Amino acid sequence: MPPLVTRRRVEFRDTDAAGIVHFSAFFFWMESAEHELLRAAGVPVVERTADGVDASWPRVSASCDYTSAVRFGAEVEIVAAVEKIGRTSVAYVFQFGHEGTPVAHGRVVAARCLMHPGRPRAVPIPDEIIVRLEPFRGRN
Amino acid sequence: MPPLVTRRRVEFRDTDAAGIVHFSAFFFWMESAEHELLRAAGVPVVERTADGVDASWPRVSASCDYTSAVRFGAEVEIVAAVEKIGRTSVAYVFQFGHEGTPVAHGRVVAARCLMHPGRPRAVPIPDEIIVRLEPFRGRN
Amino acid sequence: MPPLVTRRRVEFRDTDAAGIVHFSAFFFWMESAEHELLRAAGVPVVERTADGVDASWPRVSASCDYTSAVRFGAEVEIVAAVEKIGRTSVAYVFQFGHEGTPVAHGRVVAARCLMHPGRPRAVPIPDEIIVRLEPFRGRN
Amino acid sequence: MPPLVTRRRVEFRDTDAAGIVHFSAFFFWMESAEHELLRAAGVPVVERTADGVDASWPRVSASCDYTSAVRFGAEVEIVAAVEKIGRTSVAYVFQFGHEGTPVAHGRVVAARCLMHPGRPRAVPIPDEIIVRLEPFRGRN
Repeated sequence: MPPLVTRRRVEFRDTDAAGIVHFSAFFFWMESAEHELLRAAGVPVVERTADGVDASWPRVSASCDYTSAVRFGAEVEIVAAVEKIGRTSVAYVFQFGHEGTPVAHGRVVAARCLMHPGRPRAVPIPDEIIVRLEPFRGRN
Repeated sequence: MPPLVTRRRVEFRDTDAAGIVHFSAFFFWMESAEHELLRAAGVPVVERTADGVDASWPRVSASCDYTSAVRFGAEVEIVAAVEKIGRTSVAYVFQFGHEGTPVAHGRVVAARCLMHPGRPRAVPIPDEIIVRLEPFRGRN
Repeated sequence: MPPLVTRRRVEFRDTDAAGIVHFSAFFFWMESAEHELLRAAGVPVVERTADGVDASWPRVSASCDYTSAVRFGAEVEIVAAVEKIGRTSVAYVFQFGHEGTPVAHGRVVAARCLMHPGRPRAVPIPDEIIVRLEPFRGRN
Repeated sequence: MPPLVTRRRVEFRDTDAAGIVHFSAFFFWMESAEHELLRAAGVPVVERTADGVDASWPRVSASCDYTSAVRFGAEVEIVAAVEKIGRTSVAYVFQFGHEGTPVAHGRVVAARCLMHPGRPRAVPIPDEIIVRLEPFRGRN
């Protein structure tokens, strides 16, 4: 199975006074693409655990390199892949393109956490989740 | 002169359904802290050049590592410093803390660009800007 | 032709620490639905005019009434319609629903403006645009 | 006591590709000004009640009328006042100005709610909160 490919059109909220997409938009798009990958893998983004605490995936790190500007109305292609699965965290990589031109690439590490109010605690990723994520492995 | 220290209170718009600050907020805060540093240095964030094109500082890369969660209403301290000045770009580093606890640290590289509509073009940083930025050097 | 119906899934960026969609998200969704309606009508959202100034549609007013909360991951249905076409402005109405339950309804008035830098100036709506918008009339 | 006056500088995140402040920013600013008013009044924005459920103030409605554009870097003055106190809700009005020119005015109605997960329920406003809000009455 290939990495997950999604598309989204640049909305006005994503632009800034420089007339181009604000750099922050790529971080929102990475998060949404990660969530679509999780849904495609059959892994809930937020999951109530047996002891009544939500398990979810807060970010440990996020980064993005920008190579080309995109503007309002453009359709951006996002290729999302699982780069690495650790004991408690997953690294995702993302390629952004527009009409065949690379626009940006990014990387996010998300940790499996029990979301104790205001104080997330990292926990090992269950095996059944690892199995579901494996098919989405790829490199950017 | 020390690096620039600013404070800001977490607004509701900065939080998410996990009950904590959304990871994207740190990127907005880095940009605002960078702009405050530029203002403190006497460097315009956007500047109309002699040939009528705006010069500004779009991001080349941005990254953030998260160590601790913060919640709505908390006051976050932001220490911003110039890490490196290149020919066409400046690297800034940022430390985020809350009540003495490190919360996150980030890094942004911004390129001096002529903002031709939809197609920013990097240009050398004028010497007078370099002179103004030098006093804000620091490491995180 | 009926009003325009679009759907979108609640993204994490749209939520807040109350665990529900932040009220601001509905304004972003209204703007995007308005733009989709314009595209469906064949009206450019931003248009370079003969004298080199962009014509676009800044907001004169925007309002939203909230009747029910929605959460992360929900699919929201948005019904957008043209309520009224004035000399220089268009009023749009929006109904938001989730699984058959009304969630919110909103109204936006956008003025046809020449986007002189920092100083938009309202101008009459061209007849050919009025003709294209008419089929999307509806009431909420 | 007069209504609450706050100031904030337009950040880059608040702008859009039209080169001016995006209309959504005023809704964020209203929320933050409302929260500052609550803090000035000694009313918690979020409050854990005796039975362990948070009480807070989700929006019932929000509206804004725009009269003039503002740009990146401008300092906006916000005058916030309590317009009306009902049994379960408070109406706030907001005036936005820039260098003496009216920019926008808005109105928000927030309901006192017990924040049962995903399903806020309106409750009567405690008398002690009404007493604290009374001094901030004003009209826009």
